[in-house]
Amino acid sequence: MAYDDNNIFARILRGEASCIKVYEDHATLAIMDVMPQAEGHVLVLPKEGAEFIYELSPEASAAAMITVQKVANAVKKTLAPEGLLIAQFNGAAAGQTVPHVHFHVIPRRAGEELRAHAREMADIAQLETLAARIRAAL
Amino acid sequence: MAYDDNNIFARILRGEASCIKVYEDHATLAIMDVMPQAEGHVLVLPKEGAEFIYELSPEASAAAMITVQKVANAVKKTLAPEGLLIAQFNGAAAGQTVPHVHFHVIPRRAGEELRAHAREMADIAQLETLAARIRAAL
Repeated sequence: MAYDDNNIFARILRGEASCIKVYEDHATLAIMDVMPQAEGHVLVLPKEGAEFIYELSPEASAAAMITVQKVANAVKKTLAPEGLLIAQFNGAAAGQTVPHVHFHVIPRRAGEELRAHAREMADIAQLETLAARIRAAL
Repeated sequence: MAYDDNNIFARILRGEASCIKVYEDHATLAIMDVMPQAEGHVLVLPKEGAEFIYELSPEASAAAMITVQKVANAVKKTLAPEGLLIAQFNGAAAGQTVPHVHFHVIPRRAGEELRAHAREMADIAQLETLAARIRAAL
């Protein structure tokens, strides 16, 4: 399927929609998930336009993982969760809700269930505060 | 925590334990998960010894993701699942069961629940056959 660049992440990458930025480099953008599954849920977007991991260039995949790792370290330093899940969903059957490749970095805590994916809006002021703390740890 | 190189993946990487190999290069090894959560569940292991993504070198992280992408493409070609999940667990609270960084590549099918993680042994002959098909697609 051809990549549709009207999706929300493509619009954020073009600066047409707002986001709470955690990190950016030439190949990637990391932002707070505004419908977090747990406190500290960050999304890493390759700037390259691709719907699925299958279509992403190896260079963009590698750059995404390096950013994922940086963000994972910063989230760990900031929130000290007991665990951390990194996940990337391809296709609705896998849970993908936006047709632009993205990696989830999600703190996990013992006994805490993940909230439903892409369901409930977080408090934006709280996310801004948290993002500032994560940025400071990067 | 110091990396414990007696874990099963470290032993596989040293050739001391057997595995069903899908792919190998200088930095990574991809093997069939013998307790698959879905048909076609493959694990990608960086050869570098690290328990968590936090401790892995950026080079090893990037190499792992490039292999994950290759395997994802081959699994897609071989089994044509509707979706594909890529996941990496850090810490027991996130579902990690072996203390060596590994990436799960898991086909997802609509209406099919994932089987429990690291619970039930698959038929090895069937896994060997499937691995041969995935290798042929690489």
